[in-house]
Amino acid sequence: MMGLMMDRPLLTTDILKHAVRNYAHVPIVTRTVEGATHRYTIADAGKRIAQLANALKKAGVKRGDRIGVIGWNTYRQFEMYYAVGGLGAVLHTVNPRLGPENATFVINHAEDAYLFYDTTFAPLVGAMRPHLKTVKDFVVLADEAGAGEAAKGAKLYEDFIAGEAETIDWPEFDENTAVTMCYTSGTTGDPKGVVYSHRALVLQAFASGLPSALGLTEGDVFLPVVPMFHVNAWNTPYTCLLTGVTQIFPGPRLDGEGLYELFESEKVTYSAGVPTVWLGLLQYLEKTGKKLTTLKAGLCGGSALPESLIRGFEKYGVMLVQGWGMTEMAPVGTVGKLSPQLEKLPLDDRIQYQLLAGRPIPYVDMRIVGEDGAELPHDGESDGNLQVRGPSIVKEYYKATEPTLTEDGWFDTGDVAIIHPNGFLQITDRSKDVIKTGGEWVSSIDIENAAMLHPGVAQAGVIGVHHPRWQERPLLIVVKKEGADPSAQEIIEFVKPKLDKIAWPDAVEFVEAIPLGATGKVLKTELRKMFKDYELAS
Amino acid sequence: MMGLMMDRPLLTTDILKHAVRNYAHVPIVTRTVEGATHRYTIADAGKRIAQLANALKKAGVKRGDRIGVIGWNTYRQFEMYYAVGGLGAVLHTVNPRLGPENATFVINHAEDAYLFYDTTFAPLVGAMRPHLKTVKDFVVLADEAGAGEAAKGAKLYEDFIAGEAETIDWPEFDENTAVTMCYTSGTTGDPKGVVYSHRALVLQAFASGLPSALGLTEGDVFLPVVPMFHVNAWNTPYTCLLTGVTQIFPGPRLDGEGLYELFESEKVTYSAGVPTVWLGLLQYLEKTGKKLTTLKAGLCGGSALPESLIRGFEKYGVMLVQGWGMTEMAPVGTVGKLSPQLEKLPLDDRIQYQLLAGRPIPYVDMRIVGEDGAELPHDGESDGNLQVRGPSIVKEYYKATEPTLTEDGWFDTGDVAIIHPNGFLQITDRSKDVIKTGGEWVSSIDIENAAMLHPGVAQAGVIGVHHPRWQERPLLIVVKKEGADPSAQEIIEFVKPKLDKIAWPDAVEFVEAIPLGATGKVLKTELRKMFKDYELAS
Repeated sequence: MMGLMMDRPLLTTDILKHAVRNYAHVPIVTRTVEGATHRYTIADAGKRIAQLANALKKAGVKRGDRIGVIGWNTYRQFEMYYAVGGLGAVLHTVNPRLGPENATFVINHAEDAYLFYDTTFAPLVGAMRPHLKTVKDFVVLADEAGAGEAAKGAKLYEDFIAGEAETIDWPEFDENTAVTMCYTSGTTGDPKGVVYSHRALVLQAFASGLPSALGLTEGDVFLPVVPMFHVNAWNTPYTCLLTGVTQIFPGPRLDGEGLYELFESEKVTYSAGVPTVWLGLLQYLEKTGKKLTTLKAGLCGGSALPESLIRGFEKYGVMLVQGWGMTEMAPVGTVGKLSPQLEKLPLDDRIQYQLLAGRPIPYVDMRIVGEDGAELPHDGESDGNLQVRGPSIVKEYYKATEPTLTEDGWFDTGDVAIIHPNGFLQITDRSKDVIKTGGEWVSSIDIENAAMLHPGVAQAGVIGVHHPRWQERPLLIVVKKEGADPSAQEIIEFVKPKLDKIAWPDAVEFVEAIPLGATGKVLKTELRKMFKDYELAS
Repeated sequence: MMGLMMDRPLLTTDILKHAVRNYAHVPIVTRTVEGATHRYTIADAGKRIAQLANALKKAGVKRGDRIGVIGWNTYRQFEMYYAVGGLGAVLHTVNPRLGPENATFVINHAEDAYLFYDTTFAPLVGAMRPHLKTVKDFVVLADEAGAGEAAKGAKLYEDFIAGEAETIDWPEFDENTAVTMCYTSGTTGDPKGVVYSHRALVLQAFASGLPSALGLTEGDVFLPVVPMFHVNAWNTPYTCLLTGVTQIFPGPRLDGEGLYELFESEKVTYSAGVPTVWLGLLQYLEKTGKKLTTLKAGLCGGSALPESLIRGFEKYGVMLVQGWGMTEMAPVGTVGKLSPQLEKLPLDDRIQYQLLAGRPIPYVDMRIVGEDGAELPHDGESDGNLQVRGPSIVKEYYKATEPTLTEDGWFDTGDVAIIHPNGFLQITDRSKDVIKTGGEWVSSIDIENAAMLHPGVAQAGVIGVHHPRWQERPLLIVVKKEGADPSAQEIIEFVKPKLDKIAWPDAVEFVEAIPLGATGKVLKTELRKMFKDYELAS
């Protein structure tokens, strides 16, 4: 027997309409690429989104067309999210950190009909342009004054939308229609495309808007450092409109000082970013002795949150929690928001929860399976391959030639994890990125986190290197903090009490910089190349 | 172009699974029908829900079968919500206040295969039993000791589930499958059935779980006074599991004293009920001088929230806000949760917002239309017929013979409303001619028809007038027949056997003439003006 409820689709347009009706006055603030501050309200945004949609229609954009964008977090890219998706076209957000070769690959693979970009990326676009096969037109996200040289051979965004009607009768269509797409930054092989549906992103916005996840509401001021050019800035452009939250878009200046100034001037209460970003902010605070006066909490994801960062921010009254997700998960899988009871615990107890990856948001189903494929208990001890299932998780990559899922329909995350009886997830390692020493697994993440607690360590990466006796042993690679000069032995002695003996690194190597991927993660593949022929003494 | 996300259905079972995994330890407490307190956790509930589902399967319950229940808010009815729906069968919650005739009608109309009931309702079930055409078996929501006399001719719930497995492999099916159904208490004619889908209730749980609506989280303690026997207790059995909120089920004792004791002993932080319930609690507080030490806020719906109630509870540190909805809306339409900025206003300013019906939750689309069908602006001035649209709103009544929606697919609520530019809804009148008393609908036409049967009555009109306890009660206005001189008491006694007790008019007033409209209908608007300041004794 079927229910007798209206057949109304879950479209992102309805999030916009909801916000315009209920949160018309809520501000959206951007520190623009040019440096000036741009302010408007959700009501204003609604009008310009309609203008952009009308302009796109006039330009011949049809349902299903892909529109590429390479941009910073600004109000203009925000407008593109709603306008392009609202028409039933697909916004393809391109990660500039992919580099010209991979960025060209993804734009050709997605067959983008238009390419919008911030002036910053004019050189990148210039390099790609001869190789782009499907792009009919280029649009710079600027007005004439802002565009400068970048305007050459491209339209200007402000000209493009100028004079268009500020209202539009949004079309309605199947909620499974694509709305945005994004390519994984890839570890091996070509980047793979993930195509998000309206349904998937609306459900993500609901789930991550709950008090158990972001839990933000009208009056909260959120600054997304996570980029809109990758995995939809963790879906926050949708979640924030659904819940009436003020958004502060930081544009390109994401260094500690740049963020600090904006956090203070705009009274930011909540932020989200990868550990590298939080680290930059912390170092700025420590260097300058400045305080954060409005920020209360932050979400850290993309890679494991080091204990030193949590403790560092506690001194500034900011509670960092972890999130975990993937491009393939639209992207939020877990959020480490603590219950009010856990929040009240003394730091040394509470931090045990903050060091975990959080609990799954609703409609993200998780299981861990052993090498034999059997499901393992959520007992806080067993660890296995983490697999996920849900309405906001990829079923197949764009133009996939081989199956994306397991035979029984789960997505294998490539992470190795423990699930605790209270639901908390603990990522112990990457399945393809673990150290096996004398038959035992060692978590490189644990060693990295331990090393990051040392006051002289700015960044740490651990890989397995060949060992004549143990096959593989951990090598700790360190970037020193500015002005600090710890010795290898000092760091090893420092981490020993924090680790099982089997995990004590055999050696420490110092480097100027650790290669990071497009999303800020330590690129283990690059580290391995750098230390390919490294030999430990027996 | 379609998205490439997994085709995973939105089933209520996944809310249960989510809660068992993440909120296993969260308590569910019931003051039972017998009076004792029953305590268990979400993990325990999960096991008993599986047992009930296994028992139902064994009893031959198939997908689509309707299972009737007449019960108080207790853990057993809560278990039925998830077990019956989880199997793909349909829980038909029967409102005992319908009275035997209408309750028999709805059970026969829904073709319930089983009827579960609390011992309280054994006399009602006994009266209906000879007339029930489809019920194969009866189950009392009790064990042997608790059932007593009510066990006659019925199974016992605890025997029914005893010995069944505590786990179950929940089936998966289309998210548009029916999960619960509920009949409107009716205005004119027979009650109408509304059939909720899994999708509709999951979306309601998400939307009403947001910080902008209920906004409750783990650690909050919620006591639903709103009954599970009508409109799914405002969907809270789903919303609370989605967000890990502790539930306190009050059983049958809903008077001021009974609620006060439970609020205090269980440290309730939030509650929801109709104005009559809140009034009973307030009167108890005022009479006894007792204080509420844990309750912070409450949701009031079902009919307009009087200013006196808001101000009354302010003295006890409790902020009441309004909700508005309908059986046909699954049922939440708006929630008056104030933003942190509005919450900070002085009471005299803040109360202006609390007196409004709140703002729509996401995916409840609203419009107001004039008599000519044209849409009116949301300007805080224009009032018109309030029409709604969304994925959790009825598209047609069960076995409907005529269209339920407008030609362009909206549901006309029967309310007349203003919508303010900030999104707040203000209900100004009802276009349908009904009286809402203590949260229940009474048809004025039924009373008029009964009165017109009296030989001394020439004409009769009924309107709702203010009542200190029930907000509104029926006043019967009569034009005597020439030469006849019936007394008020005589007419009241005359109509009583023809009406449900709830519809007995509180008073009769005699007039020379009743204003009639062009088509001969009593002009209620004029009658309301004539008796604008009429006051009933309490």
